[in-house]
Amino acid sequence: MIFASDNWSGASPQIVEAVAEAARRGGPAYGNDPLTKAVEQRFSDLFEREVAVFPVGTGTIANALSLGHFARPGGVVLAHREAHVLVDEPGSTELFGGGTRPVALDGPGGKLTPAAVVAGFERYPAGNTFHGNVVAVTLTQMTELGTVYHPQEIAAIAEIAHSRGAALHMDGARFASAVVSLGASPADITWRAGVDIMSFGGTKNGCLAAEAVVIFDPAKANGFAIARQRAGQTFSKGWFMAAQLDAYLRDGHWLALARHAADRARELAAAIDASKNARLALRPAANEIFAFLAPAALDRLRSAGAAFYPWSTASLPEGAAPRQGEQLVRLVTSFATTSDEIARFTAALGAAG
Amino acid sequence: MIFASDNWSGASPQIVEAVAEAARRGGPAYGNDPLTKAVEQRFSDLFEREVAVFPVGTGTIANALSLGHFARPGGVVLAHREAHVLVDEPGSTELFGGGTRPVALDGPGGKLTPAAVVAGFERYPAGNTFHGNVVAVTLTQMTELGTVYHPQEIAAIAEIAHSRGAALHMDGARFASAVVSLGASPADITWRAGVDIMSFGGTKNGCLAAEAVVIFDPAKANGFAIARQRAGQTFSKGWFMAAQLDAYLRDGHWLALARHAADRARELAAAIDASKNARLALRPAANEIFAFLAPAALDRLRSAGAAFYPWSTASLPEGAAPRQGEQLVRLVTSFATTSDEIARFTAALGAAG
Amino acid sequence: MIFASDNWSGASPQIVEAVAEAARRGGPAYGNDPLTKAVEQRFSDLFEREVAVFPVGTGTIANALSLGHFARPGGVVLAHREAHVLVDEPGSTELFGGGTRPVALDGPGGKLTPAAVVAGFERYPAGNTFHGNVVAVTLTQMTELGTVYHPQEIAAIAEIAHSRGAALHMDGARFASAVVSLGASPADITWRAGVDIMSFGGTKNGCLAAEAVVIFDPAKANGFAIARQRAGQTFSKGWFMAAQLDAYLRDGHWLALARHAADRARELAAAIDASKNARLALRPAANEIFAFLAPAALDRLRSAGAAFYPWSTASLPEGAAPRQGEQLVRLVTSFATTSDEIARFTAALGAAG
Amino acid sequence: MIFASDNWSGASPQIVEAVAEAARRGGPAYGNDPLTKAVEQRFSDLFEREVAVFPVGTGTIANALSLGHFARPGGVVLAHREAHVLVDEPGSTELFGGGTRPVALDGPGGKLTPAAVVAGFERYPAGNTFHGNVVAVTLTQMTELGTVYHPQEIAAIAEIAHSRGAALHMDGARFASAVVSLGASPADITWRAGVDIMSFGGTKNGCLAAEAVVIFDPAKANGFAIARQRAGQTFSKGWFMAAQLDAYLRDGHWLALARHAADRARELAAAIDASKNARLALRPAANEIFAFLAPAALDRLRSAGAAFYPWSTASLPEGAAPRQGEQLVRLVTSFATTSDEIARFTAALGAAG
Repeated sequence: MIFASDNWSGASPQIVEAVAEAARRGGPAYGNDPLTKAVEQRFSDLFEREVAVFPVGTGTIANALSLGHFARPGGVVLAHREAHVLVDEPGSTELFGGGTRPVALDGPGGKLTPAAVVAGFERYPAGNTFHGNVVAVTLTQMTELGTVYHPQEIAAIAEIAHSRGAALHMDGARFASAVVSLGASPADITWRAGVDIMSFGGTKNGCLAAEAVVIFDPAKANGFAIARQRAGQTFSKGWFMAAQLDAYLRDGHWLALARHAADRARELAAAIDASKNARLALRPAANEIFAFLAPAALDRLRSAGAAFYPWSTASLPEGAAPRQGEQLVRLVTSFATTSDEIARFTAALGAAG
Repeated sequence: MIFASDNWSGASPQIVEAVAEAARRGGPAYGNDPLTKAVEQRFSDLFEREVAVFPVGTGTIANALSLGHFARPGGVVLAHREAHVLVDEPGSTELFGGGTRPVALDGPGGKLTPAAVVAGFERYPAGNTFHGNVVAVTLTQMTELGTVYHPQEIAAIAEIAHSRGAALHMDGARFASAVVSLGASPADITWRAGVDIMSFGGTKNGCLAAEAVVIFDPAKANGFAIARQRAGQTFSKGWFMAAQLDAYLRDGHWLALARHAADRARELAAAIDASKNARLALRPAANEIFAFLAPAALDRLRSAGAAFYPWSTASLPEGAAPRQGEQLVRLVTSFATTSDEIARFTAALGAAG
Repeated sequence: MIFASDNWSGASPQIVEAVAEAARRGGPAYGNDPLTKAVEQRFSDLFEREVAVFPVGTGTIANALSLGHFARPGGVVLAHREAHVLVDEPGSTELFGGGTRPVALDGPGGKLTPAAVVAGFERYPAGNTFHGNVVAVTLTQMTELGTVYHPQEIAAIAEIAHSRGAALHMDGARFASAVVSLGASPADITWRAGVDIMSFGGTKNGCLAAEAVVIFDPAKANGFAIARQRAGQTFSKGWFMAAQLDAYLRDGHWLALARHAADRARELAAAIDASKNARLALRPAANEIFAFLAPAALDRLRSAGAAFYPWSTASLPEGAAPRQGEQLVRLVTSFATTSDEIARFTAALGAAG
Repeated sequence: MIFASDNWSGASPQIVEAVAEAARRGGPAYGNDPLTKAVEQRFSDLFEREVAVFPVGTGTIANALSLGHFARPGGVVLAHREAHVLVDEPGSTELFGGGTRPVALDGPGGKLTPAAVVAGFERYPAGNTFHGNVVAVTLTQMTELGTVYHPQEIAAIAEIAHSRGAALHMDGARFASAVVSLGASPADITWRAGVDIMSFGGTKNGCLAAEAVVIFDPAKANGFAIARQRAGQTFSKGWFMAAQLDAYLRDGHWLALARHAADRARELAAAIDASKNARLALRPAANEIFAFLAPAALDRLRSAGAAFYPWSTASLPEGAAPRQGEQLVRLVTSFATTSDEIARFTAALGAAG
């Protein structure tokens, strides 16, 4: 009963087998192998345009290098207060931007609103040489609260950013979940909506360790390769990254994995809806569930061995507040979550209405 | 006939199988899994003392984080002119040290001499606030020219560094080759000789992507974990790194892999010694061979499909110079090099004396 | 009628004459002159203990180097939302700390509260390697809202910081005003209350360009001199800085200058109190006045040539809010403000009750 | 008898008086005063084109910000081994470039040669993502060895740099001396020869503390102002910088000061030529003399109270080597050097031929 995080899962057997096969072959180092080239093509196919792709090892570095790509002295990045870049990347934006400042904006349900973004820009007026200049806005798709941005929401923020000379970055550590939830094409919720650069996540959804920075306009990718090498993120056995991403994207495997996770989450949500001991704090978009648990349920689940994390209520939307004694928790399903785990969770939760 | 680099090889089947097995299990994220704990113990056993171990994805980041651990404003790192940190890590020492300056020292055969290190320190007198202060010396074991430092050579440099308040780092991207070549214990050529921190390499010798920073005095490891996370090098599926390192170190597998590579190199060296079209530029210590090739041999080898790189003669020891028309080349064997490859190389080289 | 800022004033004639005299003499470069030594002694006398003193050119660099002195990877600095380091130093804390993140805390009247500081620390638990670690707390004395910290308030925050392993920095760009306002000794509101390092300001109070970083425990000053040189802040004609600071501190000149400014501010506050067109938003501690102006007053003052800035109401204490149509403005007096200026302001303000 | 450095002199009385006058007036802060505008015009007049001018406090920061203006990840700056950026700016290029690496090139007489610059570029081939990319070449005019670059020498290096996508920076800490020595117009030895950005020095030639970064194409100055503020180099009393530079440039005062220094140097050189105890190591271009002193002369001069520094012979041109027992010394004259000092030096030197 592991609902702690989707990165507690192992890895998809197909992806592991692809790595094993590539390991039997080897090949030229530093991404000069055929598999890496093939992966670049897969991304271009996926996004329905030629893109520049840079595999890296973690989501943190994907974010940091992406934002660093737009760095200037005095640069500021606008991010949601709960964004990974602000919460779990300790000085990464600063380091890889040579001093970039990530600034926290509030927004209900983990999502930036156009109004908040405009207000963020207003704190840093163009041409002001004291406060800082916004170089990028970053948004997370799917967000840290398991919600998703709709294409028109992304487009609205993109328009704000671009009209003020800033870039739009998407942290897509759980991008597959967003695609599955929205039923939208990858292109529609990225570059067609105005995203300039993204961190495309694979690890949380079944890879071993494979993320990729995607720059949608390859003409703007100058300097990224050397920045990646400076960061120690050019893997000498580049085929090892490529093998994962190739298997991940092949025949829609990535979406199948994400659908599995979302299906299990739906079952979990149904169990919560049906229980008197728990209720959903947010309607889940895909594989992240935020729920209020009554104390008794909390105890029973812990005793039954369920792994999950308590969560801060700070960014819940208005109206979603815990009642006396309730605890907000996050429950994450993954490609590896079994229906048996859901059943055991449901049983431990108890008190079906 | 791949002699371009040991990182063109695939990966050891045992290591790949260990990864596959771990992938079936999964586990707590960010290194809180049992396998990671087990690997820490393996390193302590290997080095005959408790050590602090931090797996990371590449040798470049292992070096950069290691040197960054000793960074201070105005800090200088003394390195051999051919060292990876100076040649292939474009601004990494600078970035992760917040401005550390790596300074090139000369030395025959890719090795720093005590005299050169002393002269390096003299350029940066203690207490001088204009020139810089040496915070660390780094040496590569096995070196970029395929030579090795003997324990007493390391100790001499360590004494120079320590007596002047600087740390000693070892870039051990090919540490296994050095151990095999010297027949010394890992402890004797590291901390017992005065090494404070090392980049312990696995990738070039059969891993997929696994290196580790080892800090020999765990009391001096404060702050390293967050520096690694800042660098985007804390892998969420930490067991993936740990599985590699565990299999690598288990039952001496790492030394068996290195011995295989050294054995093939010895065969290669013998073939070169026996040919009129080639001669060794340096007596190889393990799996890197530097040889002068006559033009005809160069052509024939290329035609036969041998992959290898030409090399600069700048750091050859005195007396080792190419004759008219000769080209210096580097030939690297790996755990995956076959005797058949050696035989084909020998045949293409031709003109046995 | 210049109330825009105290840095719009010229410089104290005594200080200018001291510079002129030193310029006639010259002397050894880079602070190796007798005047620099004398200034070090003056600071030790002023603070009633031996201190380490580092003159620098601006308050921004004094803050940035001070905070940088405590930098570690993943380091966080807690600061008031209105602090100069957060508002007017665009990436300076980040740059000079090699990636330090300044984090905004709220507090009424421009002042950090112990509760806010504790909450700040709780966001960054000790040992957590993802969120960051607090390395320093910075408070501004006198604050950006013209208020002052009392010694026991400083001590409370110092205790919180020190017990959690962080340092306490004071931005003393307007330190003289705070001393005059509190009637406290410099020692009592700095190191005796737990301040570890401070930016001691001279420029706003009559110098040309002279600030100093004071490290109260000289044993903790290692590395500061080279960090200052790295920042390009070791002035070759060090006597030029020293001459200013020497004249500034000699015979209590600095306090006389600050008292003059505070006296003019008191007159200004009285005029505001007496007018129906304006009212104080905060009771001023010294030379900064925050007042609400009725629209008519605003127009009349502008027409009369008064220079001052509108201000954000964000950090006003509870209960201090503008009424319909009122504008919050900041009015700053300086050592050079004349009673005539006050009289003209008073006349333009009009509508004495 | 101060020949230690031109920054041991005081300051020009005219410059000091200009500061005093400005201090009586005051004015809008942060360079929004009329004097700063006037100085910008003076620079445009001086260079016979519109330029962007940024006063800063020291030559070190002028260099560091100039080179930082062209920084990119993996960036490399080519500099002469004796350049101030490599010898006396401890990590400044690295810090302000976010990790830029300054690389030392050799060259006789303190001057870079086109061949050395080409060789420097060849170590960092365009498009290579491992070694680094050259973003700028910096040359010092007048050099650290008191020699000067002729316009065509600058143009040759500029052509090499520009054709490879790099910028050309000039460290003009002693630019006035170069102008006086060459009899060339400031435009001819800067932008007309291909210089993109320069550190224009005032301090060594009679200012208190005034340097300026000049960007010859104002369209390329974007971002410099905020980088300067980030560095804590926007002086709030900007008129204090401007007053110095205004007086410095007014009516050719800067050239008169430099001519005075050069005249005294000529007298000094003549005395050395005439003495059996000393001989010139290099024919001086202006106010820096490098001479070999016999041991007896060294002692006598020290006894007589002459201040000067010994110097390394490393970058002397071929053929200029000390004889047995001789010591190379640097003797620097300034705007404040008196003929009496020269006479006393001459007398102490003794042994006129």
